[in-house]
Amino acid sequence: MSVVLSLPTPERARQWVERLRAELPDWDIRERDDPGPAEAVEYVVVWRPAPGWMATFPNLKAIVSIGAGVDHVLADPDCPREVPIIKTTGEDLTQRMREYVALHVLRLHRALPELEAAARERRWSQVVVPPATSRRVGVMGLGKLGRAAVMTLLGLGFDVSGWSRTGRAIEGMRGHHGADGLGDFLADCEILVCLLPLTPETRGILDARLFAALPHGASVVNVGRGQHLVERDLLAALDSGRISHATLDVFATEPLPTEHPFWGHPAVSITPHTASLIDPATGAAIIARNLLELDKHGELADTANVADASRGY
Amino acid sequence: MSVVLSLPTPERARQWVERLRAELPDWDIRERDDPGPAEAVEYVVVWRPAPGWMATFPNLKAIVSIGAGVDHVLADPDCPREVPIIKTTGEDLTQRMREYVALHVLRLHRALPELEAAARERRWSQVVVPPATSRRVGVMGLGKLGRAAVMTLLGLGFDVSGWSRTGRAIEGMRGHHGADGLGDFLADCEILVCLLPLTPETRGILDARLFAALPHGASVVNVGRGQHLVERDLLAALDSGRISHATLDVFATEPLPTEHPFWGHPAVSITPHTASLIDPATGAAIIARNLLELDKHGELADTANVADASRGY
Repeated sequence: MSVVLSLPTPERARQWVERLRAELPDWDIRERDDPGPAEAVEYVVVWRPAPGWMATFPNLKAIVSIGAGVDHVLADPDCPREVPIIKTTGEDLTQRMREYVALHVLRLHRALPELEAAARERRWSQVVVPPATSRRVGVMGLGKLGRAAVMTLLGLGFDVSGWSRTGRAIEGMRGHHGADGLGDFLADCEILVCLLPLTPETRGILDARLFAALPHGASVVNVGRGQHLVERDLLAALDSGRISHATLDVFATEPLPTEHPFWGHPAVSITPHTASLIDPATGAAIIARNLLELDKHGELADTANVADASRGY
Repeated sequence: MSVVLSLPTPERARQWVERLRAELPDWDIRERDDPGPAEAVEYVVVWRPAPGWMATFPNLKAIVSIGAGVDHVLADPDCPREVPIIKTTGEDLTQRMREYVALHVLRLHRALPELEAAARERRWSQVVVPPATSRRVGVMGLGKLGRAAVMTLLGLGFDVSGWSRTGRAIEGMRGHHGADGLGDFLADCEILVCLLPLTPETRGILDARLFAALPHGASVVNVGRGQHLVERDLLAALDSGRISHATLDVFATEPLPTEHPFWGHPAVSITPHTASLIDPATGAAIIARNLLELDKHGELADTANVADASRGY
């Protein structure tokens, strides 16, 4: 039996293969271009696998996603639906995400883009903002990462509300849920953080209608997926001043093309999908642990790390 | 009896006078240029008062500093030593400072200056940093603001140590103190935050010798006073790469002069003394409360807000 890894860039694939071999020295760990006999492949470890590729392995027992999202797996119309998809999450990923959200919400809250622009012009321009205790921040998506973000923001003193499909209570957070709760939630967000999973329902959710429901001059942080955002609607909302600033870590096309209007836009801050980048050392250790458990018990004890394909996350 | 306010800029002075009059409608609140009879002045409320000015009031009962530091009061050689100096601190100031420290430590930890430079060149350049749990941050100065900064950094997951004159224990923080403990403390700081009071002992403490005791490539956040820093030593340490980045909120001369080499330096981030800027509304409410208490009891119950002139803070 063997494990085959598929990542978009060969250099990254090699790093992951090496790390996983170090973690599982007795296993047959292979690269995409050298998979060996298709019948022997029991596990694939993937990030954005090529459509149809996973279906070429008749004896697949599980698909392992490198990361917390599985949208890039389900995007393959031939993805074998009967095979469980395992998410790679862990304290490390959660820690990185809560750092990112804290950093970028504080950055917008404290008007740092404005202070940085003044500094570039050698202007001593004191901007006084209210304390975080009277700054209303909203988090969309209350999964593992969303909940960690909410608790971190509460710890920093922010006035936090949350929105999710089914509703989740967190002490100190004002909760909203479902389509009916979205309007009230948005009306209360000076800074909106998107941490939703990408599903048919959430695709394009960050659109002109949503922006119009936010307070005028609100700002947006997208750490979900690029496909949550309707890019032309954001550009229009930034031009009109309805949205004052957008901090984006994810994009419809990654890497973001050089000619894209987001680059150099004074009201857009770009990070290159590094909010919660799992490094091969940490990620391989988590994946090895999950593979050993799958091999021994046929399933994972922590079902929170098994995606529900019907739900899409 | 009267209260006279002295601030460096007339426009700011007017704002504070108005706010204080609103808080204390029955009191005689006056501006510096219209103090009335010197004998009637019982309280002065000051930020960087002109040397000799406070000594012109023979019946002064207390000096109120606008802010948590009193160095700007004690800098006057004729400051009446027998008169108590009241600090203006409060939850609002502490909240603002912990936001600033969290924001700028996270910004350096997550290599945001590097990511921003790449973004300006439209480069998609993924930088992976370790999680905060293995990032060693040191806080110098463990007064009210320093302790709040330490607890906020611990809450974000950082590996935090602290240094103070006499030593203070905070759960989860490695503590160091005194001249003997400084070397061990510095050797352990990847990011150093200065929140010391300005005293003869701490003036110029951020100098070449201190930078040489930090790990190579460490970064520095100064939110104490400009006089803590030896500017030419910092510029040399940045040029040699010993210090990789400095985030400065305070300067020897404020506003920072347009021709100063810190402006435009790629390894220096400047904020215009806004880390914990007290706004007149909040500040006047705290000052009014303290003045009423002084007037009624002759002293403050919370002695933590009374400076010790012999100690200098």
